Amino acid sequence: MKVGVIGAGSWGCALAILLQNNGCQVSLWGHRREQIEKMQASGECDKLPGVMLPKEMSLTWDLSSCLLGKDLLVLAVPSTATRETAEKIKPYVEKNQILCSVSKGIEEDSLLTQCGILEDVLGKDAKVGVLSGPSHAEEVVKGLPTVVVAGSRDIAVAEFLQNAFMNENFRVYTSTDVTGIEIGASLKNVIALAAGMSDGLGYGDNTKAALITRGIKEISSLALAMGGLPQTLSGLAGTGDLIVTCSSRHSRNRKAGMLIGQGLRPKDAMDQVHMVVEGVYSAKAALALGKKYQVSLPIIEQVNEVLFHDVDPRLAVRSLMERDKKSEIA
Amino acid sequence: MKVGVIGAGSWGCALAILLQNNGCQVSLWGHRREQIEKMQASGECDKLPGVMLPKEMSLTWDLSSCLLGKDLLVLAVPSTATRETAEKIKPYVEKNQILCSVSKGIEEDSLLTQCGILEDVLGKDAKVGVLSGPSHAEEVVKGLPTVVVAGSRDIAVAEFLQNAFMNENFRVYTSTDVTGIEIGASLKNVIALAAGMSDGLGYGDNTKAALITRGIKEISSLALAMGGLPQTLSGLAGTGDLIVTCSSRHSRNRKAGMLIGQGLRPKDAMDQVHMVVEGVYSAKAALALGKKYQVSLPIIEQVNEVLFHDVDPRLAVRSLMERDKKSEIA
Repeated sequence: MKVGVIGAGSWGCALAILLQNNGCQVSLWGHRREQIEKMQASGECDKLPGVMLPKEMSLTWDLSSCLLGKDLLVLAVPSTATRETAEKIKPYVEKNQILCSVSKGIEEDSLLTQCGILEDVLGKDAKVGVLSGPSHAEEVVKGLPTVVVAGSRDIAVAEFLQNAFMNENFRVYTSTDVTGIEIGASLKNVIALAAGMSDGLGYGDNTKAALITRGIKEISSLALAMGGLPQTLSGLAGTGDLIVTCSSRHSRNRKAGMLIGQGLRPKDAMDQVHMVVEGVYSAKAALALGKKYQVSLPIIEQVNEVLFHDVDPRLAVRSLMERDKKSEIA
Repeated sequence: MKVGVIGAGSWGCALAILLQNNGCQVSLWGHRREQIEKMQASGECDKLPGVMLPKEMSLTWDLSSCLLGKDLLVLAVPSTATRETAEKIKPYVEKNQILCSVSKGIEEDSLLTQCGILEDVLGKDAKVGVLSGPSHAEEVVKGLPTVVVAGSRDIAVAEFLQNAFMNENFRVYTSTDVTGIEIGASLKNVIALAAGMSDGLGYGDNTKAALITRGIKEISSLALAMGGLPQTLSGLAGTGDLIVTCSSRHSRNRKAGMLIGQGLRPKDAMDQVHMVVEGVYSAKAALALGKKYQVSLPIIEQVNEVLFHDVDPRLAVRSLMERDKKSEIA
């Protein structure tokens, strides 16, 4: 199988290595020529220090050579670059090529998910799928057991992805619930911000577990209203990925939340984290989706209050604790 | 409201303090006279160092005085002592008294949950409920925000418990799904053993998140076959409590699993943990329930293999990773 991996960040590199080791012939594209030349010279993945690239894998900064004649294209660009990248690859995409998005996020204006953007640009006939679940790149390249889900509205595409990615250390389940997978994957970052705030405020494991559990309940309600399935949200791309993000020291979203909990203003927290804090965009998009589908999202609302309306995170938690008495199964 | 709390372990003490501070008149019973006298003399909770007991709360080692004339009885004894305690209190239980179990576990021979044992001993007319969810006693006494669920087949009993326990730091949802709550609460300890083994083997966050997510899926399948609801298992008593248990350093189940993962034989791991490792009993009971209700429980099966049939935990993980290709939503 011939595979083009578009995007040479840590996740793109990890998946390129995994696919090459699975017996695929992989071409990895990065947009920065100097990064690609550096990796070609050293044989080492610059985003994953100490990890060597398989010798048979090709590296390129020429997009067309990464695309042509491939059975599978893996899109591993930042979610904010997905539309632009889709426009760029459009002239080269062939009819039976399978596209797999591995990015997470909702487009702010259109409220489209990653697969939604790909279909919007490439047409409804494009064979689009998604790979998601609890999967730190650093652990996947070490061969630590990892379990994820491959989704596509076309079950044949999901099974194609399962066959391509699965190996003894990387177990892949299939699913046709793309909406559930992508809403879960995108909105977990908003709950990770809330979990970080809770940690920053000095709250305990009880509080964080409650935020995660009631958070996935909110995400689930929204996803269901959009046509997703409950078992997806309680599955790998929902609960599974949320657990990893909320407990990881590496999560930028959790870190930004923690700084806010410790008293920093949201803008200063973002500056201190340096990199893009995806949850800040997704928080806005989630609120807009909640309005559109008339779903109550109390935790996500309070995250928005803290991020954009100067509400003290302690008061935000208080207002969540003092809501009306409710049933869990209503 | 007059309340008797039966059992002066850390959770019994924490709930007694919470209820007294909520305005109830609480009597706390412990079976060891010397423990009660020590607490009476010092005014401090011996199970929660540094935590002072409210002066208005009464302490007793005389069971009948803890029971008579009470509106609510909270049963906070170890799950293995529930049947014996129920037999002892039976002559004193009054018709409209509400009983709330806060213990977790399945009786090995009968396969009954805690509420099941209470109803078995006290009769089907007993007003029985359960309180469950992610709630370390140490955090509850500090007033850290905690969210739990109160369940009873009789919604009026669940609402009674919600009103008794809820305050600004302790949010209580109601539920009528007692089966879902109690199966989730009991079987989480089996998955905590598995999560501990994964940590002990040196696996990462990916592996643990996958075990938690696929573990709650198994527990959920079993609970559903027994009449439970999916939203309970993805809720506070299921996913919520499981997250806390699998990430806590204090969990005896996780610790025992970790020692086994590091190479100790199960028996030696139990000896080193000293206290009762609930998950070991629940692992057996879960397997028996799986057979009875014809539900496939691959993770729980592997935990049983490691605990009782000398299977190397690394091979157990391997056999989970190399199962047939599956769909997540099948």
